Order: sequence, then C-alpha cells, then structure tokens
Amino acid sequence: MLLLSKSDIQKFYSLKECMSAVEKAFELFSAGEVEVPLRTQIVKHDQKSSFLCMPAFCEKKEASCVKILNMFPDNIKQNLPSINAQVLNIDANTGVINCIMDGNYVTQLRTGAASGVALKYLANENCQIGALIGTGGQAAAQLEAMLIARKLDEVRVSDINYDRAKDFAAKMNEQLAEYGSKIVAAKDPNEAIEDADVIISVTTSKNPVYDGNKIKAGATICGVGSYQPQMEETPVELLKRSSKIYFDSKSAVLAESGDILIPLKNKEIKEDRFTGELGQVINGSLRGRESEDEIIFFETVGIAAQDLMTAKSIFEKSQASNLGTNW
Amino acid sequence: MLLLSKSDIQKFYSLKECMSAVEKAFELFSAGEVEVPLRTQIVKHDQKSSFLCMPAFCEKKEASCVKILNMFPDNIKQNLPSINAQVLNIDANTGVINCIMDGNYVTQLRTGAASGVALKYLANENCQIGALIGTGGQAAAQLEAMLIARKLDEVRVSDINYDRAKDFAAKMNEQLAEYGSKIVAAKDPNEAIEDADVIISVTTSKNPVYDGNKIKAGATICGVGSYQPQMEETPVELLKRSSKIYFDSKSAVLAESGDILIPLKNKEIKEDRFTGELGQVINGSLRGRESEDEIIFFETVGIAAQDLMTAKSIFEKSQASNLGTNW
Repeated sequence: MLLLSKSDIQKFYSLKECMSAVEKAFELFSAGEVEVPLRTQIVKHDQKSSFLCMPAFCEKKEASCVKILNMFPDNIKQNLPSINAQVLNIDANTGVINCIMDGNYVTQLRTGAASGVALKYLANENCQIGALIGTGGQAAAQLEAMLIARKLDEVRVSDINYDRAKDFAAKMNEQLAEYGSKIVAAKDPNEAIEDADVIISVTTSKNPVYDGNKIKAGATICGVGSYQPQMEETPVELLKRSSKIYFDSKSAVLAESGDILIPLKNKEIKEDRFTGELGQVINGSLRGRESEDEIIFFETVGIAAQDLMTAKSIFEKSQASNLGTNW
Repeated sequence: MLLLSKSDIQKFYSLKECMSAVEKAFELFSAGEVEVPLRTQIVKHDQKSSFLCMPAFCEKKEASCVKILNMFPDNIKQNLPSINAQVLNIDANTGVINCIMDGNYVTQLRTGAASGVALKYLANENCQIGALIGTGGQAAAQLEAMLIARKLDEVRVSDINYDRAKDFAAKMNEQLAEYGSKIVAAKDPNEAIEDADVIISVTTSKNPVYDGNKIKAGATICGVGSYQPQMEETPVELLKRSSKIYFDSKSAVLAESGDILIPLKNKEIKEDRFTGELGQVINGSLRGRESEDEIIFFETVGIAAQDLMTAKSIFEKSQASNLGTNW
C-alpha cells in the first residue's frame, strides 16, 4: 500500500491537475456514471461530533475509493483540526486497497477545484478583479483555483477578522506569486466584492455575508461554505438577481445547503429558477453563460465523485514518482 | 498513524485476547450499545465483485472503526486473495484515524473468536473430540479458538479435498502444538463428526456437508460458513435435533444466512425454535446449556461489533509494544 501525506502530494500533483479530475467527475456524475451509496453518518451523543463514511465507484473509469471523514468541532479547544479525513484508493479490478492519502488535503484540493471548474465554464473571459470571502482552511485552494481559471489583476480577500485577512493576503502573495496577481486584504466583504468579476464565498456563516445588490452585472459567484441546512452565507438578493443558478449535484444541494434551502422554505425563490448541474454544462447538454451581463451563481456542497476522480488521478500520477511511503 | 500488518499483530496479540474482545462485543451488541449503520455495498456490473464499507461505534466503550472489505471471487484466477480488507481504528474522542490494520487478519481472528466464545459458553465442560469441516482461509483461527475453549484429545479436520485436509492437519499439528491435541485428517465430514463433542463447519457450500442425524447427543456445533442466503452447509436435521439455537445477531442471521433462511422458507423449521443471541447468554439474560445431552447450535455471520472491539483491543495492546510502522 502506498501512503501519501499532504507534502508528498504537493510535490507531484497540482491544483490544475485536480481541476481536470474534478471536471471529469462532474461530467460523469451528471451522466449518472458514478455510484454513490448514501453516506453513512454516526453522530455522537453530544450531537456535535460525527463519523462519516463515503464510498464511491465509477465502473466506466475503473475508479473506486472510500473517504472517511470525522467532524469534531470541539477539537479546536485542544488545538486539533476539527476535520480528520483519509481517502483510500481502491483498484477497481481487484479490490486491493492500494493507497491511503491525506483526506483533509484531498478535500481542500477537490473543493477548490470545484470553484475553479465552475469559473472556467461560467465566468466572462475577461475578468480583472476577484473577491474571496473567508480565509479558513479551504481558502488557499479556492484562491488558487480562481487564479487558474482567470488571469486577474487583483483579488480582495476578506474575513470576519481583518487581521486574519491581512495575514492571509501576505502569505498568499508569496505562495501564489507565480500567478502575478495582487492579493489584498479588504476591510469587509462589501469592499471586497465591489466591481469584482469573480467571487467565491467560503464561510460557515448563518447569515448572508455581503450585500447581494452590490454584486456587479456579469459577475460569477461560487457559494462554497453552506454545506449544512442552517448555514446561509449567500444573500437571497443575489439569487434573485442571478440569470442562472447551477449546482454540483442538485440532489445534494437540495438536501444540505442552507443557501438554497432557506430561501426556498421562505418562498423567496422557486425551484424553477435552478438551471441545472455544472456537469451538464461540461458535457454540452445545458447552456452556460449567454451574455456578458448575466450574473451567474454556482452552489457546491461537495460530492463523493470529486474525491473519487481526484484520488484516482493522484494515485496514477504518484506512480511516475518515487514519492510517498510504501507499506 | 500506526500501520499494523498481520505479522506485526501476530507478535503481540493472541486469539485468546481476541476472544475477550469479541465476548465483550457480543454482550454490548445484544444490549444495544453498538451503533452499526447499514453497511454500504457497491456491486460491480459483473454481479460478482463488491465493495463493502462497515462503520461501527460504541459510545460507552469509546470505540470507533471502519472496515473496508472488497470481495472479488475472480481474483483467484490471478492468484490473488479474493478478499481484501483493511480496518481503520478511530479515536472516538477526537475523530483522528490512529491506526490502519490488516483487515483480512482481523476478520480471521474475530471470526474464529466468535466460535471460541460460543463454545466457551455453550459446550459441555468435558469434551474429548472436536471436528472442523472446511480448511480454507478462516480454518486455522477456528481450530485454535476451539482448542482455547476446550481441552481436546483429538480434532478431525475434513475438506472436500482430502489432500488439502492432510496438509492442513500436518501444518496445524506443528503450529498449534502448544495445545497438546492431535489434529488428524478425516476422509469425509461424517467420519469427522462421529462422536465429536464440538464441531465447527466453515465452508461456503450450498448443500449440507454432513448428516445431521449422526451428530452425537450433547454436541455443540458452530455454523460459520453460511454468510449468504444461497449457502447452506448445515443440515436441517441438525436444526430439528437442536435443543437450542443461538445467533451472533438475530437480524443479521435472518438477513444473510442460508443455513437458517432456506429451512425457514421451506417451512422445515419455525422462528419459535430460535433461542436468542449469544450476547444475551453472556450477560446472563438468557440461559445457555441446561443439560449434558442437549445439542446446541450457534450460527454466526459476523457483525461489525466484533471488528470494532477487536480493532480497539489490538490498537490498545500495540501501544505497549514498539511494533508496527509509524507514518
């Protein structure tokens, strides 16, 4: 069995490669080619901590994996990460578990890649300004994916804690220098989104984090943070102003995302406003952007197909390197 | 993360220790203390190969694990094991996946331990002769568990292939010499069971493998091999002659075991003949053997609670050794 840590993967695998894997994942998923049994979830008696188990399989691509992801929000009190995850890659022809890889890092990569693929397909070709709201664990991959998808002059990053936004901007200017974009900290989300062409929000907020009326015409927005029904970071005004609303998985978003579920429940939007899945745009069965002025919104909660195709591509790429630990 | 191979585990962990863990597992399971979500199963298009994912959790014992087990019967054509399994042990207080261990070996241990615990609780105190039918991958642990449970003069082993039975007997005489029992190959199952006090059958046969009328009064029999509805190694005559019939898990046996399902369907036995679960005998809520002449039958299909408590005890024991690989 091959063991791949985050630093192993970083040495041979790029976010750009993950975007190719996730693009394929969305396409296969929307074509019904990925088998994803209902994930099992065991919740502890404290009603906070939970153990998740997410298998996925694609016969057509000979891909099989299981992600184990445990969420322990109180870990932060002990200075431990609140999410602990591992992904097991499986040889689909023999059932041999051939690789175990850092599941937190796979999650960061494939979640960033989802936004990157959405922007690649949905954003205007010419964009100058980006905005990123939220600078937590998923933020770095989101920012890099944005920069891979579009060449930007400037990205404003914002956080509920301004100092954290400044630290993050400084770190990212160094880490992502190759993209030649200026990363600046904004005092608040509304300053960040002003005139922004592409926007990603990745917070776990229960209240909308920016003013939807201030989003400029033609912008493309990814909602990444709202993966539970009580989380609503996206303002309903933005949904109302959007010409098109896409999901990674319609059934998953309508089961999990407060961004969509709360305004639906409040009858502020209707289901007929939902355009479809990004995978349908990728395979050409659904139209993407049709004019430069359309506001387009993409909501992602994350699906096992992303882990599946990311794990497969990481494992395959690892075979050409001598990296990782053989056990 | 600690990595434990079969040979690591063999160096510090005994089947006897596993029997203690499995005894506790049955007790906790029958008391409703183990959470086991329905296992996920993905079946390949060939309708033969399948990917299984089995999480389990016991809040009371702070135990959490996931077993990944992939069954690929055609692997044998490539000289590969048909079962590939790994068990991930999880720190129930932080969600950290702290150990991955050889799942095939854990399965062998805990399956052997189930029979060992059943014989410990249900067999007559004074036994002389044992019989083991089937000498496949699970057989060695079954035989050792039988020898741990009762001091025996002789154990007859039988297989559909007599040469294989002879090879197995020779190997076991060496490997299990410490128990001071003579292991001999029998020409056929009926020769093996003649006058046997304790009997374990562990075949995947679709037809009864011995004559139920030839089992002697007072015998205790474990049916281990019938874990799918079309498998029926145990003769219905034995079920009819049994004073008591116990299961590891009533719901699991009634969902999976042809030994019980086929005669039920054919109306050859009725549900009121089922005594209960072994865990109830262990915790004292159900009677075990009441006379020396009773024939007692125990059917086990294997439950996730066994993996859970076995993995926990292996991990805990490993901490006192320097064995395994740290990653």
